[in-house]
Amino acid sequence: MKHETIRLGHGSGGLLTSRLVKDIILKYFKSPVLKRLEDAAQITLKNTNLAFTTDSYVIDPIFFPGGDIGKLAICGTVNDLAMKGAIPKYISFSIIIEEGFAIKKLERILKSAEQAAHKAEVQVVCGDTKVVEKGKADNIFITTSGVGIIKLNLSKQRIRIGDIILLSGTIGDHGVAIINERLNLGLRSSIKSDVAPLNLLTKTLLKYKSSIHFMRDPTRGGIVSVLNEMVDGSKMGIIIREKDVPIKKEVIGATEILGIDPLYIANEGKFLCVVEKASAGKILKSMKSHILGKNAAVIGEVVKESGVWLETKIGGIHPLLQLEAEGLPRIC
Amino acid sequence: MKHETIRLGHGSGGLLTSRLVKDIILKYFKSPVLKRLEDAAQITLKNTNLAFTTDSYVIDPIFFPGGDIGKLAICGTVNDLAMKGAIPKYISFSIIIEEGFAIKKLERILKSAEQAAHKAEVQVVCGDTKVVEKGKADNIFITTSGVGIIKLNLSKQRIRIGDIILLSGTIGDHGVAIINERLNLGLRSSIKSDVAPLNLLTKTLLKYKSSIHFMRDPTRGGIVSVLNEMVDGSKMGIIIREKDVPIKKEVIGATEILGIDPLYIANEGKFLCVVEKASAGKILKSMKSHILGKNAAVIGEVVKESGVWLETKIGGIHPLLQLEAEGLPRIC
Repeated sequence: MKHETIRLGHGSGGLLTSRLVKDIILKYFKSPVLKRLEDAAQITLKNTNLAFTTDSYVIDPIFFPGGDIGKLAICGTVNDLAMKGAIPKYISFSIIIEEGFAIKKLERILKSAEQAAHKAEVQVVCGDTKVVEKGKADNIFITTSGVGIIKLNLSKQRIRIGDIILLSGTIGDHGVAIINERLNLGLRSSIKSDVAPLNLLTKTLLKYKSSIHFMRDPTRGGIVSVLNEMVDGSKMGIIIREKDVPIKKEVIGATEILGIDPLYIANEGKFLCVVEKASAGKILKSMKSHILGKNAAVIGEVVKESGVWLETKIGGIHPLLQLEAEGLPRIC
Repeated sequence: MKHETIRLGHGSGGLLTSRLVKDIILKYFKSPVLKRLEDAAQITLKNTNLAFTTDSYVIDPIFFPGGDIGKLAICGTVNDLAMKGAIPKYISFSIIIEEGFAIKKLERILKSAEQAAHKAEVQVVCGDTKVVEKGKADNIFITTSGVGIIKLNLSKQRIRIGDIILLSGTIGDHGVAIINERLNLGLRSSIKSDVAPLNLLTKTLLKYKSSIHFMRDPTRGGIVSVLNEMVDGSKMGIIIREKDVPIKKEVIGATEILGIDPLYIANEGKFLCVVEKASAGKILKSMKSHILGKNAAVIGEVVKESGVWLETKIGGIHPLLQLEAEGLPRIC
């Protein structure tokens, strides 16, 4: 089947669908729960306080430096659970495929998704496969949902004036890697997407419990979107210092050429964390001791003045407004 | 916003996305959990034995007699949970929209989805919205996932020789309604999709506990697909009697004209139920007393001889083989 392409019949519920699922999909996703191929997976969660999330992935291109749509679909949903202070457990994986898509490419995506799931310590337990006519989708779209056990009580409502804003690492890597690949710019090929399962890092922070007030990963809209969300509807504001925001030199170079602002670019393996001032030092230290947080930094704090503000390198202060639209479609 | 269309920026994570979610989506989905717009919803389930499922809906046309893609996306996932013997509780709702899609149509779909969720007694608690360029999707695709509390222990492994096969109502309605609408055949416009939340019916059957061995709703591939799945990998077989399979006259008429077999056509509001013989009578009676089961019937039984068999109206017996492909793409 390796050299074949997806036909409409692969989505029809007949023998072709059955073979695609049993011969191709179950070759990669090995959960004994999934293997039963029931209408719904039976899962056990020894806790009644759960996190539930979903995301559709329509990224273009589907393969990019540092990952592909399969890895992204697992990590993105794992990260949404991690940001809720949860231990991610079970993932659903639903695919919409364009007729004519190479099964070899599908296998590459499934393999990469399974590797990401394994690394993130989650199980893919249920899924669905649909096929649409050529020209009615763009290669492949994946929607994942996830369930996890909530361990921290995080919410916007817990953010207080004086809280410290931590950023877990460099920003802009994912967005720049995608644009570079999509436009075939050939800019510094060393720039890779940062797509990674953040639960591996957040689980090392669970011990700080109530000192952590809020976490969110800056995907679409970048860190400016998340910072605005944090204080949206409240009377507080946030100030961040440009000089403290970690960005790789090659990413800065690329964004200057492209004329885009890294503060607005999507990331897939970083998060912002709002913590109480007294514990910020030790939480930062914990983050930095993990590979996924080695470039973590304190980038700002929650202040009385409403709005989101940037203190520039030369000392000016200007507002960081949320844009109408990011201008980079299909970045995740 | 009513007369506007979806723009790429509506999927970018900026202000446009925020407005679409707050002004349009939250107008229909009113769950207080969803309203928090967190990365993941916090849900509570007072049970550790859960069902988890997902399905993508790519149906064409998106509006059809008896429903639309929104109602279908809720009912389909609710039904997958119901078939697992679960009480459906929480639903995720993820949308991929083609640029240029009318917001008015989106509202119609969301309204219908929310009505179905309300009827099915489930809450939409999380979601996602992505937009792709014109020509890169077909109007709208929806992926829903669901979580529910398992109340019955159902599995293929519990099916025994001598068990009775119940069908909850007439077959073929959904498939014929879709084809009629898609091909603009104008065949007997009284044929409507049967799309409905089956949990309303299955919850009346929970009291029969261990007498119910297996349930499955015959969507893609029709009842023949499900019957084959039931005995696939076992040495048992199933025989069903043509005269006992409930089909509406107008559906028979339409399938004759179209040259398709209703036994292979998708349904969205019916299910097959395998029960122990001694309790079949009272379970059938319970089903028939509910509006969604009023045409329920005993259609066959599990037998020693392997394979799936049809006893025709004139007394012949022939095998019901699973087809390579159903031949009707995008039926759900």
